[in-house]
Amino acid sequence: MDDTAGAGRRVRGGGGAARRAERTAVRSEFTRYIERNIPNLDILTEEGLAIIEANADTVLEEIGVNFPDNPAALALWRAAGADVRGDRVRLPRGLARSLCATAPATITQHARNPDRNVVIGGKGLVLAPVYGPPFVRDRDGGRRYATIADFRNFVKLGQMSKWLHHSGGTVCEPTDVAVNKRHLDMLHAHMTLSDKPYMGSVTEPARAADSVEMSKILFGADFVDQNTVMTSLININSPLTFDATMMGALEVYARAGQACIISPFIVGGAMAPVTVAGTLTQVLAEVLAGVAYSQLIRPGAPAIFGAFVTSIDMNSGAPTFGTPEAAQITLGAGQLARRLGLPYRSAGAFCGSKLPDAQAAYESANSLNIGLLAGVNFMLHACGWLEGGLVSSYEKYVMDADQLGVLHRLAAGVDVSDNGQAMAALREVGPGGHFLGCDHTQANFKTAFWRTDLLDYKPFETWEEEGARDTVALAQARVHKMLGEYQAPDLDPGIAEALADYVARKKAAVPDAFL
Amino acid sequence: MDDTAGAGRRVRGGGGAARRAERTAVRSEFTRYIERNIPNLDILTEEGLAIIEANADTVLEEIGVNFPDNPAALALWRAAGADVRGDRVRLPRGLARSLCATAPATITQHARNPDRNVVIGGKGLVLAPVYGPPFVRDRDGGRRYATIADFRNFVKLGQMSKWLHHSGGTVCEPTDVAVNKRHLDMLHAHMTLSDKPYMGSVTEPARAADSVEMSKILFGADFVDQNTVMTSLININSPLTFDATMMGALEVYARAGQACIISPFIVGGAMAPVTVAGTLTQVLAEVLAGVAYSQLIRPGAPAIFGAFVTSIDMNSGAPTFGTPEAAQITLGAGQLARRLGLPYRSAGAFCGSKLPDAQAAYESANSLNIGLLAGVNFMLHACGWLEGGLVSSYEKYVMDADQLGVLHRLAAGVDVSDNGQAMAALREVGPGGHFLGCDHTQANFKTAFWRTDLLDYKPFETWEEEGARDTVALAQARVHKMLGEYQAPDLDPGIAEALADYVARKKAAVPDAFL
Repeated sequence: MDDTAGAGRRVRGGGGAARRAERTAVRSEFTRYIERNIPNLDILTEEGLAIIEANADTVLEEIGVNFPDNPAALALWRAAGADVRGDRVRLPRGLARSLCATAPATITQHARNPDRNVVIGGKGLVLAPVYGPPFVRDRDGGRRYATIADFRNFVKLGQMSKWLHHSGGTVCEPTDVAVNKRHLDMLHAHMTLSDKPYMGSVTEPARAADSVEMSKILFGADFVDQNTVMTSLININSPLTFDATMMGALEVYARAGQACIISPFIVGGAMAPVTVAGTLTQVLAEVLAGVAYSQLIRPGAPAIFGAFVTSIDMNSGAPTFGTPEAAQITLGAGQLARRLGLPYRSAGAFCGSKLPDAQAAYESANSLNIGLLAGVNFMLHACGWLEGGLVSSYEKYVMDADQLGVLHRLAAGVDVSDNGQAMAALREVGPGGHFLGCDHTQANFKTAFWRTDLLDYKPFETWEEEGARDTVALAQARVHKMLGEYQAPDLDPGIAEALADYVARKKAAVPDAFL
Repeated sequence: MDDTAGAGRRVRGGGGAARRAERTAVRSEFTRYIERNIPNLDILTEEGLAIIEANADTVLEEIGVNFPDNPAALALWRAAGADVRGDRVRLPRGLARSLCATAPATITQHARNPDRNVVIGGKGLVLAPVYGPPFVRDRDGGRRYATIADFRNFVKLGQMSKWLHHSGGTVCEPTDVAVNKRHLDMLHAHMTLSDKPYMGSVTEPARAADSVEMSKILFGADFVDQNTVMTSLININSPLTFDATMMGALEVYARAGQACIISPFIVGGAMAPVTVAGTLTQVLAEVLAGVAYSQLIRPGAPAIFGAFVTSIDMNSGAPTFGTPEAAQITLGAGQLARRLGLPYRSAGAFCGSKLPDAQAAYESANSLNIGLLAGVNFMLHACGWLEGGLVSSYEKYVMDADQLGVLHRLAAGVDVSDNGQAMAALREVGPGGHFLGCDHTQANFKTAFWRTDLLDYKPFETWEEEGARDTVALAQARVHKMLGEYQAPDLDPGIAEALADYVARKKAAVPDAFL
């Protein structure tokens, strides 16, 4: 099995920047996105799916969704045949689903290095890092507000992480940069420090427009007009409310042919019912309305069925992670997304723990495994998430990123070729023998098993002599090593200059704002 | 949903001891074994399964298996139609499978408290604790050789663990008791300190016989003659070798109608080929031969398809855990077991880590989740396993045991009843509302979500004020609490006396041996 590929892979199309990148790219180890060769785990029956789909139609028809402060959206909905009263939009049964039919089933997101292009949909799984935390934590400095220096470090870790396919978006909030300007620095970091695909800004429509403009500098304007080079996280204000700012960003991206992840943001019991089937009904209704709206903006605009779902700790009101209810919703939403013919975003290395300890790892492993088996196509937060999403953890980033290798190998399925069957080895060794020295083992041992780059399997005495380090201590060393070895991927100097100039110009044009 | 049940459950049959126990049982919280309401994850195709089954037949026919130092076994095989030369037994194609047909598809293992009876097979999953470590570790005392005091503590923790269905066997090796007598103390602890089902001794045929005799004191001789009251772990000396001592224990149990787990013990790359399909072929061949042998001893004897599989770290030669290859083997062996119509034992909270840290938790969670989805019916090592099985960890025991609750809820599937659909809640709350206060939430919140008894979801500031405890520190407190609150289940004084007398008599009869 050959999961990873280094130098010399062939270019598969791409723009001028892509070709230039190919000529000059730093040859770091990387892995293609996962293409599953194992089945999904379908926990809902046909009957259960039909009930939930019918109920979602009832929600859209009887209860409807709100599009506040957005008269243009209301006009579009009215023209499409919806019943619009005030901000409330009620959709005749089947309307949303029929509008969703123009959204593509798979999306190729281009990277400036075309070897890093990803296909989102089908049997694919694209892994992207944590998104959104205002804090960072590491073993060296503890928990503190994130800065742009942290942001750049996390982008570098992403570039160096061989099982990670995507540079992500807000890998942490650079709180030392003005709110109205930090998107420029964040995009600049992704574009210059990584050659993996990245996400656009969604916090204001104008910032989405900046994301498109900067992408045109990086890829060329024609290329961006004709291809998807960004995914962007459009959260729904659950229950059933479509915030005008987020919709403004969606409108920019949809018009530009860039991909939107339409994602209910749900803490079950608070923003959705306490039951799995009830939450799935709401998730489906919200995604149907959101994706349908993207198709009203531009038929064929790439859109992704998102589901960010946690449950609530009924004692404290805090969100919980890695729970069985979240697993069931993740699995069920995958079935609903496939029936709708849309790519699916869910799961991640979710945890509620304050530290990258056993709690964090149980919760994250539960969610990562379920994400693979749920047929997730785009997994945001696949590494680095800590403390319910308040913290980007340096150590947990590399810990989770190592575990992503497990998903790759599990997804590859079982090789039943002659070599996989290993009958020659069984015949050579026989009863009571040992396989280590046999020909088949010698021919296969280098690639036979997934290998960790982090975890410890040494004998107890060796481990103790070396300092009795726990996983966090091992991860701290790996963070230092990766940042120390990091090399920026080459970038055409003209493009680099134009990007820097764009950022400087936009920053100079308005005063800083920290709200 | 009502996973747990306390006082007042009805007795479902059982012997005299069982009826006495029912009258006097301490009412501790407990949970019935899992009955899955979700599908298994079948990763092998029909073609792959047919290849592996044909290859296993070829292994048995051409290579054969060894039964050293066991002339009686060789005679039985010869009479059954096998080709026996020296210790080597070669089986005509199909012979082993046809002999296996008399083994039951499901096994009811009785406990002295009949509410704790378990059914092993079908859609069931019975969870049992760690088995075999010579060391223990806790946060109070570090890593040290296990003693009988530790053993009793682990049995008490098992009795107090609500998601654990089985008291297990050698929860740690009581190294302060003579090797030839410790089985007596171990059985006595399970029989007196727990009222859950337990495992018998397998280290010598005479110790297996003691296990049967002591069970007859506990349950009554007639009851034991007619029912299964023990499962026992019969390891195969992989590759393809059936150790005479282990077979001696199997012979005792099979004749007594007690259940044997026929378990290849495989570190892939050492005791089996480095490939998944090759290992599955060997596992199937070994289990076929072992179960067939149990049926030669007594047709209808209860037997379980076992698969203990890890892979090897090709750098150090150390076994690895929670890996994708082990997951694929666990999933594939489940499919093979179901096609053979046998109950299936595999998975566990496996890890290679020296500490109950993030590594331990990632590895354990990977294995626990896969175990559930592989259709495992009996999961040994479901809690407490540390350091590749060298250590029983107090803290990890309660950490894993808490996670077993996740498996229960995930396995229960999705409720699509009217209450599960929650349409009333969606109608009541509407766009922009909040579900916490709605009628449906109020009616359901107590049972809506799995609740941890261990993990922390408090706000950061509260958590910090309370000492910034990691999972191990939380688990240490829980261990102390559980052992402090432990109450022994009542036992008929006559039975207690007879058991103590049996142990004393057997111990006095021979000198201590420590080899």
